[in-house]
Amino acid sequence: MRYSLHRIFVVLALTLAGFSAIAQSKHPSDEVIVQLQKEALSSDLAWNLLASLTSEVGPRMAGSDADQKAVKWAVAKMQSLGFDRIWTEPVSFPRWLRNNESARVLAPFSQDLVVTAIGGSPSTGGPLEGEVIQFDTLEAFEAVADEEVRGKIVFLSTRMPKTREGSGYGKTVVNRSRGPFVAAAKGASALLIRSVGTDSDRLPHTGMMSGSEPGDPVPSAAISNPDADNLMIMLTRGEPVRVRLDLDVGFNGEATSYNVIGEFDGSEGLKEYILLGAHLDSWDLGTGAVDDGAGVAIVLAAAKLVNDLPMRPRYGTRVVLYANEEQGVHGGKAYAKLHETDLTSHLIGAESDLGADRIYSFKTRVSPEAEPDIALLARHLNSLDIEFDTTEHADGGADVGQMRKLGLPVIDLNQDASRYFDLHHTANDTLDKVNPDFLRQNLAAWVTLVYVTANSTVAFGPVEPSE
Amino acid sequence: MRYSLHRIFVVLALTLAGFSAIAQSKHPSDEVIVQLQKEALSSDLAWNLLASLTSEVGPRMAGSDADQKAVKWAVAKMQSLGFDRIWTEPVSFPRWLRNNESARVLAPFSQDLVVTAIGGSPSTGGPLEGEVIQFDTLEAFEAVADEEVRGKIVFLSTRMPKTREGSGYGKTVVNRSRGPFVAAAKGASALLIRSVGTDSDRLPHTGMMSGSEPGDPVPSAAISNPDADNLMIMLTRGEPVRVRLDLDVGFNGEATSYNVIGEFDGSEGLKEYILLGAHLDSWDLGTGAVDDGAGVAIVLAAAKLVNDLPMRPRYGTRVVLYANEEQGVHGGKAYAKLHETDLTSHLIGAESDLGADRIYSFKTRVSPEAEPDIALLARHLNSLDIEFDTTEHADGGADVGQMRKLGLPVIDLNQDASRYFDLHHTANDTLDKVNPDFLRQNLAAWVTLVYVTANSTVAFGPVEPSE
Repeated sequence: MRYSLHRIFVVLALTLAGFSAIAQSKHPSDEVIVQLQKEALSSDLAWNLLASLTSEVGPRMAGSDADQKAVKWAVAKMQSLGFDRIWTEPVSFPRWLRNNESARVLAPFSQDLVVTAIGGSPSTGGPLEGEVIQFDTLEAFEAVADEEVRGKIVFLSTRMPKTREGSGYGKTVVNRSRGPFVAAAKGASALLIRSVGTDSDRLPHTGMMSGSEPGDPVPSAAISNPDADNLMIMLTRGEPVRVRLDLDVGFNGEATSYNVIGEFDGSEGLKEYILLGAHLDSWDLGTGAVDDGAGVAIVLAAAKLVNDLPMRPRYGTRVVLYANEEQGVHGGKAYAKLHETDLTSHLIGAESDLGADRIYSFKTRVSPEAEPDIALLARHLNSLDIEFDTTEHADGGADVGQMRKLGLPVIDLNQDASRYFDLHHTANDTLDKVNPDFLRQNLAAWVTLVYVTANSTVAFGPVEPSE
Repeated sequence: MRYSLHRIFVVLALTLAGFSAIAQSKHPSDEVIVQLQKEALSSDLAWNLLASLTSEVGPRMAGSDADQKAVKWAVAKMQSLGFDRIWTEPVSFPRWLRNNESARVLAPFSQDLVVTAIGGSPSTGGPLEGEVIQFDTLEAFEAVADEEVRGKIVFLSTRMPKTREGSGYGKTVVNRSRGPFVAAAKGASALLIRSVGTDSDRLPHTGMMSGSEPGDPVPSAAISNPDADNLMIMLTRGEPVRVRLDLDVGFNGEATSYNVIGEFDGSEGLKEYILLGAHLDSWDLGTGAVDDGAGVAIVLAAAKLVNDLPMRPRYGTRVVLYANEEQGVHGGKAYAKLHETDLTSHLIGAESDLGADRIYSFKTRVSPEAEPDIALLARHLNSLDIEFDTTEHADGGADVGQMRKLGLPVIDLNQDASRYFDLHHTANDTLDKVNPDFLRQNLAAWVTLVYVTANSTVAFGPVEPSE
């Protein structure tokens, strides 16, 4: 309710104050922004950072050796980019390991299924065999009596729909997040899900199960979309389908990684800064190019370009490359916990974590007083074909959103996610999937955001803390 | 030379005889063909056969248990489709096994490469490590002095271009076919190639090396296109790139599989038939849906639909599902050897082995006397948006082409191969890649071909034997 009233208020304020008149007027920053965008649109900086991360570090699953290399990589890059201050903050979490994984249909036919364990899954402790029972949705599975599924391998076949904003994800990811716990509660022996992804490649999508469901999950894995299609055909043939699942995975102790933080000072010696975020860890299957190497590259490059101006912005720019977003937003939560007392030195936050395709809209969660700056931002983003979406508030993303929950104002630059869930959490998440022109458009949008917000003369907050 | 004169003669004959006049005239078969096409365009038969093969048998690499299952599947399907005679003919070949394969960059960075052994490769006999030396083409590799590559892992990075007719394949497949032998002759320790494929998926393309090069090949493998891109970036970083390759693969004894042959008799008791071919084996990585399950389904369904007519064609229809095309056209060669003395009972041959996308043109290799039937065929294929391509002769495909070499007249129905080499010989060769409407268009073209040729009153041959 609070949310809706607030939203209506912002929209009204923007409209009634003559948003369009403001949006057309000249502003002292206009020339600088136009020049910055031009520079971004011909810059190779983000691409080069991304190529470096994906080739020199590659996959960097939280808690792995490569994760430690990524931390060193990030510190070294911030140094070479000339950040004024660079430091790390430790983030601890349970270490989850993927050693081996395989699945095979044993009867009435025999062929392998391409499979990957869901993050957080326990091991099968050697080959686990069972009859497959299929449900179209988690809801349908939950509705049946426990005795129907007891001891069986449950297969949830829900297909994720493809949309620009990626909204199909939320509808189907419950299979992955809650499915393993529902299966355990109902006495199933294991869970197979159709990959939560929109492609038809023989590459399964991993991703974490929920960390907050009660009870212990069953061994759980995702099969690729083509394998799910194949299994569906087998299930129509009238005979029980038996599968062997072998997952050598599981939790093993604690690991520590690091949020890597770099700051450019502002021009006026103020101890306040805007907060840019992306996550440094990736899943292990791909090289983490779109998730979230692109975000890392974009926020680093944007901070660099803006702070290389002859006249730096008033406020500082803080870039946080978060540890272990993938397995439970550990970096974002650790940062918010540590910096809660320090909240007011963060003027506003924004995160890049939905790939590298074109930004098509932006949303805000700011105080009404910020209207002139938002109007300026809207005008300059509009020249990059980015529309101001006032239908809902920004949420700040997975990591920066942890600070939003405490009341940090945030802006979302929304990327076209049509292709994102083709690649998300698969081996196909590699550099070749990134379009260099789209990456530059992202960079142009981000330098605009950084320049406008870091030169702000108004307060973006306070906004109401929100879940 | 002989080829060119012959070709000019056919083209001239077709033109001078007033091809277009003939093509427009009514023919007694017209109504039947229109009806057959209509039936094919709404038929699920080919799809159902293909779904059955890919789900119930799945990957069926020559010499594997699944290959034997595929033979049984084919015999059983021919029985259920009502073929008049069904038999098998043994085909023996060296058995090649893929047990395990992996590759990893060790220095100056460390990450896995997605790799698959090239068919015919020997084992590395445990992990093989070496420095990578890259060449843009096989030609460039051949041009360097042996001492430059001795003991190194050679990487051929040539990218296959995408074209409708698949012509990029011939240009780049030399890396796979000859590369392993060139590498051996020059003293390299192993060969890596960029996959011979037009996709950017993290799925490498397997395929056979040449069986006719002198000497023994080095251990050889293909990495996926994204991995090749990644390795190229690593090679620009100025330090030697070291890779570990571990291929547990190799030849192991002899295997026997079977050409599966089914015949529908013609209506006049003649001992002559048209020959339809596709290959039953597949590579092991995918389920062999486009290569060549689609061909199997199309020729079986076409023979069935035409011979289910109230009035069967004059001549019989023989369908040959060839054994082990993938590893050296063993089935096609065995068939040609066994049936050389029997050549004249084959009126004409055609093969389906380039996937399941739309047929856009056809070519012929027939005697000038066949012109009226070819004109009739051209007219009815034209209604399916298929053009008569007179720029070159048909070659009959890999298997049926073995009979063409002996002088069998052949017709090629040319499929759009734009997507084919995205999938070819990869794990992505699965049923979901087949467009049911395109498969039906194929079937409509094939029933037209079968009906027209099996009712012929002219001789398609003799044509000159050709290599």
